[in-house]
Amino acid sequence: MSSTQSIRLAVIEGDGIGHEVVPEGLKVLRAALEPDGVEVATTDFDLGAGRWHRTGETLTDEDMDALATHDAILLGAVGDPDIPSGVLERGMLLKLRFGFDHFVNLRPTRLAPGVTSPLADPGDVDFVVVREGTEGPYVGNGGTMREGTDLEVATEVSLNTAVGVERVVRFAFEQAEARRNKLTLVHKHNVLVNAGHLWRRIVEKVGSEHPDVEVDYLHVDAATIFLVTDPARFDVIVTDNLFGDILTDLAGAISGGIGLAASGNINPTGAFPSMFEPVHGSAPDIAGQQKADPTATVLSVALLLEQQGHAAAAARVRAAVEEDLSRRGELGERSTAQIGDALVAGVRSR
Amino acid sequence: MSSTQSIRLAVIEGDGIGHEVVPEGLKVLRAALEPDGVEVATTDFDLGAGRWHRTGETLTDEDMDALATHDAILLGAVGDPDIPSGVLERGMLLKLRFGFDHFVNLRPTRLAPGVTSPLADPGDVDFVVVREGTEGPYVGNGGTMREGTDLEVATEVSLNTAVGVERVVRFAFEQAEARRNKLTLVHKHNVLVNAGHLWRRIVEKVGSEHPDVEVDYLHVDAATIFLVTDPARFDVIVTDNLFGDILTDLAGAISGGIGLAASGNINPTGAFPSMFEPVHGSAPDIAGQQKADPTATVLSVALLLEQQGHAAAAARVRAAVEEDLSRRGELGERSTAQIGDALVAGVRSR
Ligand SMILES: CC(C)[C@H](C(=O)O)[C@@H](O)C(=O)O
Ligand SMILES: CC(C)[C@H](C(=O)O)[C@@H](O)C(=O)O
Repeated sequence: MSSTQSIRLAVIEGDGIGHEVVPEGLKVLRAALEPDGVEVATTDFDLGAGRWHRTGETLTDEDMDALATHDAILLGAVGDPDIPSGVLERGMLLKLRFGFDHFVNLRPTRLAPGVTSPLADPGDVDFVVVREGTEGPYVGNGGTMREGTDLEVATEVSLNTAVGVERVVRFAFEQAEARRNKLTLVHKHNVLVNAGHLWRRIVEKVGSEHPDVEVDYLHVDAATIFLVTDPARFDVIVTDNLFGDILTDLAGAISGGIGLAASGNINPTGAFPSMFEPVHGSAPDIAGQQKADPTATVLSVALLLEQQGHAAAAARVRAAVEEDLSRRGELGERSTAQIGDALVAGVRSR
Repeated sequence: MSSTQSIRLAVIEGDGIGHEVVPEGLKVLRAALEPDGVEVATTDFDLGAGRWHRTGETLTDEDMDALATHDAILLGAVGDPDIPSGVLERGMLLKLRFGFDHFVNLRPTRLAPGVTSPLADPGDVDFVVVREGTEGPYVGNGGTMREGTDLEVATEVSLNTAVGVERVVRFAFEQAEARRNKLTLVHKHNVLVNAGHLWRRIVEKVGSEHPDVEVDYLHVDAATIFLVTDPARFDVIVTDNLFGDILTDLAGAISGGIGLAASGNINPTGAFPSMFEPVHGSAPDIAGQQKADPTATVLSVALLLEQQGHAAAAARVRAAVEEDLSRRGELGERSTAQIGDALVAGVRSR
């Protein structure tokens, strides 16, 4: 939460549309900080499928050390159709999240005025998902035996610790207090009884220290129902890594598409740089054509600004995005850079 | 797939609205089989929260033995607010699914004419989810150490075998061939690399024996997006136990609510009785008031009829349900039994 007069930012454009949306994010970031006299010093990191194809490397120890010297990381998107599944996810994205102990994966969902939802009657959608980022089935614990034979057995182990759950639950309660005082735990404690009851007990314990926050619980399957029948009921959702992955894509879908969905991989202790990235992927099918919407990246920049202690600049960015979204009907097709320019102008006008 | 002239049916009404919807299901079942001269001999089993409160028992070995002598099982719903989470799920529902090796959990989704969806523009929704029923994170493998302390560690192990995956994948391909020749594997193989790659390899292998079936793949998070933005794209979805749980509730939600969602827990080998149940729960809040919609149970009866080799009777039931659903606008509020009566009349009129 440093409020320095300069931000040392590590930039990972990645692959595909990452190369198009990140420059727009940076333009908006700089414009938003101008009035406060804050500079942004960027270091580019060449990471992703491109690097892997050329060098076979995903993320080296040197990369991690170099990234660690920055205040924050802005990531576009990684991946292409020719890289085997799991290589970048496990070897880079999750290595970053785990290595920098990004235990909070913060994903706000808001259906902005003017944005169409696939839901007939979405109501007032405005919630955040606080997804655990360093535990659960994402830990990479598991294996395969007798691979490729009829006797193959493959396992995936979900690991959950009291410390790991408590710290993210505490963060979620604080979010709820800064919002509408409502927290929904999503899990599946009737089947995943060990992990589920751990989450439940910790939410109960931390909840007793926050009597002002109304707490409820939904099984993950039921949560998907409410996300389409009554998304307005949610304020803060706290959930595990895998359920959070699923719920936030669905949340993105009902609120205008993942082209608008932002996320922050946050280490609230400040021990390591936090990382901000749009939820969408590298979209190779439209890459290089200036067709990508940079809004999710720009909203990720707003999260970055907030986390770096520049709340006023974050508010300027959000206001510019809201205004732009509300006028999309009249504006017609625009290129990635044109949307970025409009957002810069919007930020400057505030 | 026996086609006897009588069905020995084990009936588990369970708790809450289970006591109201199951009798309607039985009325419709009998009416549908009348023209074929097939009788239904029922045995009632007292299982669920009620039994547990009275006796502390969930499902005994004697219960299992007695159930096993039947051709099929019809289950209403179990649970009430006073039973600890997990007791009935692990001790009864999953014990039945695992004990009777119900490796196919079949969940059709169809948006019937006249039924409103929360989606603004759902399109032609008609797909089935083939959910694996005996493996994955549902196996109950895992534990807790240092429970209740700050050092607690809780694990959940997802177990997946080649045999287990292959048999359900084969079933799914057969479904696709009997439908629109399209199969979508849903998993998360970029993160759950061991289980995910097993599923992937097996779908590839079995797919090569079914060149007529078009196969695609979606990560579970992306699948939730398409379920709300373009559900018409799906024909057969094959997926693991947990992802199937989540996707089928969402599928129910977009197609008229889980009040209409049917399911079959099927052992296609016939070694054990298959079990048919609505996806909804026991709904204690409306229990005993004749407010529950028996349609999900009646559609589960249609699955039962099909699995028992009575396709014509199944078709009669489905047609009656479709007709009833299409007239709901004019019909106003009806009791559980009134809907059941209307469906019986509908079946008889065919
Ligand atoms: C790419 C993948 C590893 C990642 C995840 O599963 O977390 C993505 O889906 C996300 O939500 O950020
Ligand atoms: C009650 C629960 C164990 C069950 C499941 O998770 O399978 C239910 O949600 C279902 O989908 O049938």
